[in-house]
Amino acid sequence: MISIQEALNIVLKKDYSVDSEIINFVDSLHRVLAEDVFSDINMPPFNKSAMDGFACRMLDINNELELIETIPAGKIPKKTVGVNQCSKIMTGAPIPEGADCVIMVEDTKILNNGNILFLKDKTKDNICYLGEDITENQKVLSKGTLIRPQHIAIMASVGKTKVLVAKKPKIGIIATGSEIVEPGNVPNQSQIRNSNAYQLISQVKSLAAIPNYLGIAIDSEEDTYQKIKKGLEETDLLLLTGGVSMGDFDFVPKIMQKAGVEILFDKIAVQPGKPTTFGIHKKASIFGLPGNPVSSFVQFELLVKPLIYKMMGCNSALPELFLPMKNRYERKRSERESWFPVIINSEGFVETLDYNGSAHINGLGPANAICRIELGKNCIEQGERVYVRPI
Amino acid sequence: MISIQEALNIVLKKDYSVDSEIINFVDSLHRVLAEDVFSDINMPPFNKSAMDGFACRMLDINNELELIETIPAGKIPKKTVGVNQCSKIMTGAPIPEGADCVIMVEDTKILNNGNILFLKDKTKDNICYLGEDITENQKVLSKGTLIRPQHIAIMASVGKTKVLVAKKPKIGIIATGSEIVEPGNVPNQSQIRNSNAYQLISQVKSLAAIPNYLGIAIDSEEDTYQKIKKGLEETDLLLLTGGVSMGDFDFVPKIMQKAGVEILFDKIAVQPGKPTTFGIHKKASIFGLPGNPVSSFVQFELLVKPLIYKMMGCNSALPELFLPMKNRYERKRSERESWFPVIINSEGFVETLDYNGSAHINGLGPANAICRIELGKNCIEQGERVYVRPI
Repeated sequence: MISIQEALNIVLKKDYSVDSEIINFVDSLHRVLAEDVFSDINMPPFNKSAMDGFACRMLDINNELELIETIPAGKIPKKTVGVNQCSKIMTGAPIPEGADCVIMVEDTKILNNGNILFLKDKTKDNICYLGEDITENQKVLSKGTLIRPQHIAIMASVGKTKVLVAKKPKIGIIATGSEIVEPGNVPNQSQIRNSNAYQLISQVKSLAAIPNYLGIAIDSEEDTYQKIKKGLEETDLLLLTGGVSMGDFDFVPKIMQKAGVEILFDKIAVQPGKPTTFGIHKKASIFGLPGNPVSSFVQFELLVKPLIYKMMGCNSALPELFLPMKNRYERKRSERESWFPVIINSEGFVETLDYNGSAHINGLGPANAICRIELGKNCIEQGERVYVRPI
Repeated sequence: MISIQEALNIVLKKDYSVDSEIINFVDSLHRVLAEDVFSDINMPPFNKSAMDGFACRMLDINNELELIETIPAGKIPKKTVGVNQCSKIMTGAPIPEGADCVIMVEDTKILNNGNILFLKDKTKDNICYLGEDITENQKVLSKGTLIRPQHIAIMASVGKTKVLVAKKPKIGIIATGSEIVEPGNVPNQSQIRNSNAYQLISQVKSLAAIPNYLGIAIDSEEDTYQKIKKGLEETDLLLLTGGVSMGDFDFVPKIMQKAGVEILFDKIAVQPGKPTTFGIHKKASIFGLPGNPVSSFVQFELLVKPLIYKMMGCNSALPELFLPMKNRYERKRSERESWFPVIINSEGFVETLDYNGSAHINGLGPANAICRIELGKNCIEQGERVYVRPI
């Protein structure tokens, strides 16, 4: 059986990306940049005051200073500051000719004759210099950036009001199994409600992709075939849950093949998620995810999410932290790498949770991360560092 | 001057919350639950098979077993399993009467006479028992939960298709200053582009609240007054940037008072963000945030975000991690607590970034967290643990 790392390599091998589109920068939050962004100006665009105070010559700060002008932010200074002169200046306003520092208003006193006296004997220059943060034509954001609020501010500063981003990929979702009923129904003695499809819809939404829910395929080959065919035509990536195990009615991989899918793997040495199946079909890819909710969630995190990021051309590394365990963790069997729900606590330690296994629908409820234990390893000691992935 | 912790206590003191509304559970991602959610069923709702295999009596697993029935998921078993009998069973299907374990299909062989032989000498029972994950009427989600994909799955499982959540608070945003021009314009020699308002709009959107941008108030008392008045009437919380410093045109706090705002603080011993101003007015609250983009960003994280969470009744603790420094960090002055942009690297260490101060618009670009250094402290040693807040 292949490892999860080998599976991921196969999933990411296909050269695959969605188109890009130009949108208003204000609407680009959580999208992925499809171009480099450059500055059209120096920043600051002029030598500007970092403080409210008086602009003067550093040589004169211990002298009485004659006030010659007041410079609000947004106005160009009219006068040149000479020997023993100063101009009152607001934060963000341009430094007048002649001045090489700003003394802070809090450190000054206005004398009866209207002159200014500095009450300390030294000062920083309190000037933000032209281009000290960004120079004209400098690259300020790279293609592939996952756009966050601070990046929107950078686009605003450099006048990037229309921005090229990756289109949102369309992700088809199909639940399979005759035992599955939609959440609005009360299940009878042999049924369970469809939770996976809605979990997947939400996971897809979290990545700013577009979920396209195609419904429940009941356990008939024909219904499953029709839904898979429709999904492959209409979406960039198709996710199925259930029907990939060893049961008589687990014909999802077979139907995938009938629909022209080339299956690249149908088993991974990982727990939960061993029967995870992956294939490609023309321009679309398709996953057969396990039917248990935790398995489906974890395989989405480990395999589907990196693929959706790749489709969008996103260069943000998926964070995997290496943190110490708060308590000891043990498991009986170790023939697969395993991932289990944990909490990263406020001191950066990893705490285990009450967890009954992959069908434990609320095992993930309080979790903020999933934690890895390697193949062949039965326990993690207290204090030992482990790989965890925030969810 | 008050500390940031004292400021936060003042901000959160007011008893304040937005209304709630009932929405479809599928649309509740990133919203805050305004009710506890209980299960209407046991989960599993019956003893179900965890594997594809053969259900039989544990006593008989070393004997040849007669196959009496096939039980797909979604079907109720018709026959009782007797001595040396078994029923073929699919993952998720109900365990038939008489059986107390499931032997895995991979570990069995079908004999020529159609009987089943188990190839190992022991097995777990491979049964998920009725109610082992959730019992009927059990609370599965608490009021105040910030809803994530795994919570949507839990709601689906317990049939919670309509759910009470906090309404999205409306957050008004006003930029101030005559030197500010909108991003579509090319600034002249004394102007800068409006980046803060768009950063705030995006920060508000990240919390699933509704930004209401009221434009730039030019440096006139009347324009600022009219915009503040409108903002206080139309929104739950009003954010202004700029105009709170010590300059002649920094009349925001004065105008707030004119508009009937009771100012609760106008200075905090924190860097960046010292002139941050906060007040209350009837049912609305109002912040005067500093005009530098990093100051505005940081004060949003430290003060505004916890308030918006409180308004929505969210009980999710804002994560503050206590992690070791990768490198030494030094600062010259230490009379204020300070926060600076950092990266939490993949090994859980905190790395400092190139950062010129609070006007450094792209200082936050690569950051994934902000890091605290206490008042009175000039340096953080390599390896020393510090408080960081993911952004």
